[in-house]
Amino acid sequence: MYLTQGLHRSLQIHPDRIATTFRGRHRTYREIHARVSRMASGLRNLGMSDNDRVGILALNADRYIELMLSIWWGGGVINPVNIRWSVPEILYSLDDCDTRILFVDDNYLSMAEAIGASAKCPPLMIHMGEGTTPAGMLSFEQLIADNAPMQDLNRGGGDIASIMYTGGTTGRPKGVIQTHLNLWSSAISRLAGQSIGEGASVLHVAPMFHIASLGRVILQLVAGQPHVILPAFDVLAVLQTIERERVVEMVLVPTMLQALITHPDFARYDLSSLRRLSYGASPITAPLLELALERLPGVAFIHGYGMTETSLISNNGPESHSAEGIASGRIRSAGRSVMGVSVRIVDEDYNEVPRHTIGEIQVMGANVMSGYWNRPKESAHALSGGWLNTGDGGYLDEEGYLFIVDRLKDMIVSGGENIYSAEVENALASHAAVGSCAVIGVPSERWGESVHAIIVLKPGVDASDSDIIEHCRQRIAGYKCPKSVAFVDSLPLSAAGKVLKRDLRESYCRGVS
Amino acid sequence: MYLTQGLHRSLQIHPDRIATTFRGRHRTYREIHARVSRMASGLRNLGMSDNDRVGILALNADRYIELMLSIWWGGGVINPVNIRWSVPEILYSLDDCDTRILFVDDNYLSMAEAIGASAKCPPLMIHMGEGTTPAGMLSFEQLIADNAPMQDLNRGGGDIASIMYTGGTTGRPKGVIQTHLNLWSSAISRLAGQSIGEGASVLHVAPMFHIASLGRVILQLVAGQPHVILPAFDVLAVLQTIERERVVEMVLVPTMLQALITHPDFARYDLSSLRRLSYGASPITAPLLELALERLPGVAFIHGYGMTETSLISNNGPESHSAEGIASGRIRSAGRSVMGVSVRIVDEDYNEVPRHTIGEIQVMGANVMSGYWNRPKESAHALSGGWLNTGDGGYLDEEGYLFIVDRLKDMIVSGGENIYSAEVENALASHAAVGSCAVIGVPSERWGESVHAIIVLKPGVDASDSDIIEHCRQRIAGYKCPKSVAFVDSLPLSAAGKVLKRDLRESYCRGVS
Repeated sequence: MYLTQGLHRSLQIHPDRIATTFRGRHRTYREIHARVSRMASGLRNLGMSDNDRVGILALNADRYIELMLSIWWGGGVINPVNIRWSVPEILYSLDDCDTRILFVDDNYLSMAEAIGASAKCPPLMIHMGEGTTPAGMLSFEQLIADNAPMQDLNRGGGDIASIMYTGGTTGRPKGVIQTHLNLWSSAISRLAGQSIGEGASVLHVAPMFHIASLGRVILQLVAGQPHVILPAFDVLAVLQTIERERVVEMVLVPTMLQALITHPDFARYDLSSLRRLSYGASPITAPLLELALERLPGVAFIHGYGMTETSLISNNGPESHSAEGIASGRIRSAGRSVMGVSVRIVDEDYNEVPRHTIGEIQVMGANVMSGYWNRPKESAHALSGGWLNTGDGGYLDEEGYLFIVDRLKDMIVSGGENIYSAEVENALASHAAVGSCAVIGVPSERWGESVHAIIVLKPGVDASDSDIIEHCRQRIAGYKCPKSVAFVDSLPLSAAGKVLKRDLRESYCRGVS
Repeated sequence: MYLTQGLHRSLQIHPDRIATTFRGRHRTYREIHARVSRMASGLRNLGMSDNDRVGILALNADRYIELMLSIWWGGGVINPVNIRWSVPEILYSLDDCDTRILFVDDNYLSMAEAIGASAKCPPLMIHMGEGTTPAGMLSFEQLIADNAPMQDLNRGGGDIASIMYTGGTTGRPKGVIQTHLNLWSSAISRLAGQSIGEGASVLHVAPMFHIASLGRVILQLVAGQPHVILPAFDVLAVLQTIERERVVEMVLVPTMLQALITHPDFARYDLSSLRRLSYGASPITAPLLELALERLPGVAFIHGYGMTETSLISNNGPESHSAEGIASGRIRSAGRSVMGVSVRIVDEDYNEVPRHTIGEIQVMGANVMSGYWNRPKESAHALSGGWLNTGDGGYLDEEGYLFIVDRLKDMIVSGGENIYSAEVENALASHAAVGSCAVIGVPSERWGESVHAIIVLKPGVDASDSDIIEHCRQRIAGYKCPKSVAFVDSLPLSAAGKVLKRDLRESYCRGVS
């Protein structure tokens, strides 16, 4: 199996079906096929060899999908860049896996310039935006026009398909290696569990560098279904697009759903084509669900739990999104494992524990990553005995519903993004005034959690909270920067000298720090 | 991915769902899990090591499914024996892949005795029938009772799951190697294309040693759905079972469908639970389809095309089983490739040909076998450049519907079984009176094709057609033996001395031979 297979099959069975809709532009599978086979050839001519990484720094677009297919067609590996990251973070990730070609859209041209200026070995830049191609860059459309079609190299199975960078507990991003088999098996397993019907359109609005959205794009590619694409989340554009393109399904995070159904113009749009809303990042609250069920009758709600290392692990289906689901508490569950994915709960010695007993969640299946790029030690630590250690704590009930109760790894989830405390602490520690520091997640109505920094200043030195936050902004993505800072005299430490984060969280909740 | 995964998942999410129904006996997934983990342990204690082959010579039964799961659980490989074969054929296949353990049910005890008597190294025999275990055999239930449960060895991916013997063009059966990935990917792809809904029962009535039925068993295992099992096809039993067990789907060959819907008691049974009938081996005729649509309203008909080497290749769906489908001729199509399976038509140099051009059908995908057991030359011949050469001739129309027009390999399809002419010719040639011979398929209302032998006797020697047929019966399966024999003075030969079978077929149709 290989990730371009759905394109070949679509060309064979429905060549004239609309493949992509973006900014009023429609392209059929026949057109996509022609463009992809030329772009792949262009990439090879630019020096892309088998297994070479190609970066994509862009908002969602039809070209994003064409580019992924082209890279695979020509034997390469996609490296979808986190658009929220800072220049140093992106530079680190491109350099870590030796990404020599980088596609950039109009929104990230100045960032690309900064990357080019700072990189030891600047990547070849290709402009994939709608505007004029800047001097010194190649153009996406020109590459297609200038190159003859090539045959698909048919890489697949255990060949690497993507390297996606994710924050790391050690404070440095890690490249998650997914093979064609990993991504294909996740897509086909989800289709097996919940087919949405032949020809149904999915709206991609969450950013494609993220596994939740990328996984959905691949699912549509495997099934040969239509993709409707918005560059980013905008409530009005989403409402208009659902109505205009008769969208059947979309993937959201609960905050987007909230914005959608409470928009003043919500009732003006015909959303009757919608059949399913999948949401991730965090469970939905009962009041939001109740409002959503009322405003979107006939829509099935599905909560997905997954991570970059695994793609989708489990789904909490419509059966839990009901009055009974709210009453039984299953609405707060991450659902049941998707077909082909094994989930179990283990104790510290990796022995399986009984139902309702909390332990670490482990995952096994063809969906699980092959490891971290060039990180044999961390890969071995994450993958023990064929099982991936998620770092999440949870339990299973008697019908296999998974409940997540704690994060074992030191991580904050804010607005659907995972933030490793170590990354923020590294940035804070580089400030001249900071003696020691710790970062925790604190409850936030809007973001689920928000980043809170607790700092011990060096003796005789001073710094304000805005100094500290601004210092971080230069180094890490905005969403990772502390939203609030507290200055204390000392941090609570364990006997082994480790900061006791649980104590800090308790102090925060009591209003102490 | 591994083929026992569905059992683990079923135990987690619906342990008390009925897994198997056979002879009025119902077992839940929890019960199956307990039995399988003990039987696997029993197999290991009997000496089964990783990758060891275990034969199954039996009619369909719940134990057939438990046994497959147990063999995989314990790290072994299934070798489902063709129950229609003769003792020499079975002996050859067991010996070819060194099958040291053989499970036998009540129906094949005398055959097992003959195998034991003739084998150079007789396999260990285990009785899996309902009757009393014969002296000298171990008992299925005793093995379960005597052994403690073991942990699943979790073999999967590229590990071998099955070796299924199929007739060979060279006259000797070949063992088709399917890995866990091969069989799993076929099952999950079919589920992706046509989910039948949570908890739907499938009736297994076609013999489980055959890929069509085995594939369906695996699909139900992956999905964790209920299996309803009949030992073999019996019209009344099928009608009663559909009604009693509320069967949703079954797999048939057209001759079985004919027998079902024309049975005098057909109208006495409530078949309203039936939603889908899949049929294989040959396309359905328009009159049979028209009758079937009338008698089974609301049932979707799906024709599947596949082979042991590939599992399912394509499906001709309900859209072709309609008045329009009959009028357009798509009713005679083998349908469109299932998700994840690539199909193409090539000329003799393996170049793809345009639509509507006849060539050889090639298949690529995770579903394609890894090769033939211990046959590197034939494996390399069958698998060229990642594509499997089916040996079938056909063409694709503009929407990817596949039409099979000829068999390039010298094979007869009779009653849904593939018969290689070479095997029959080898049997004929061993008769003392036969000088030269050729075997062709001739049209048969009942069987699709039937085996016809054309013989040149040695000078001065005589033999009757019944002599010849009886001679074959001692050596090859009954269904492979000629149904008719013609004696001629000479066979038409090509310049290279090859028998011109096309000429023989034409002569037969003109009533000459």
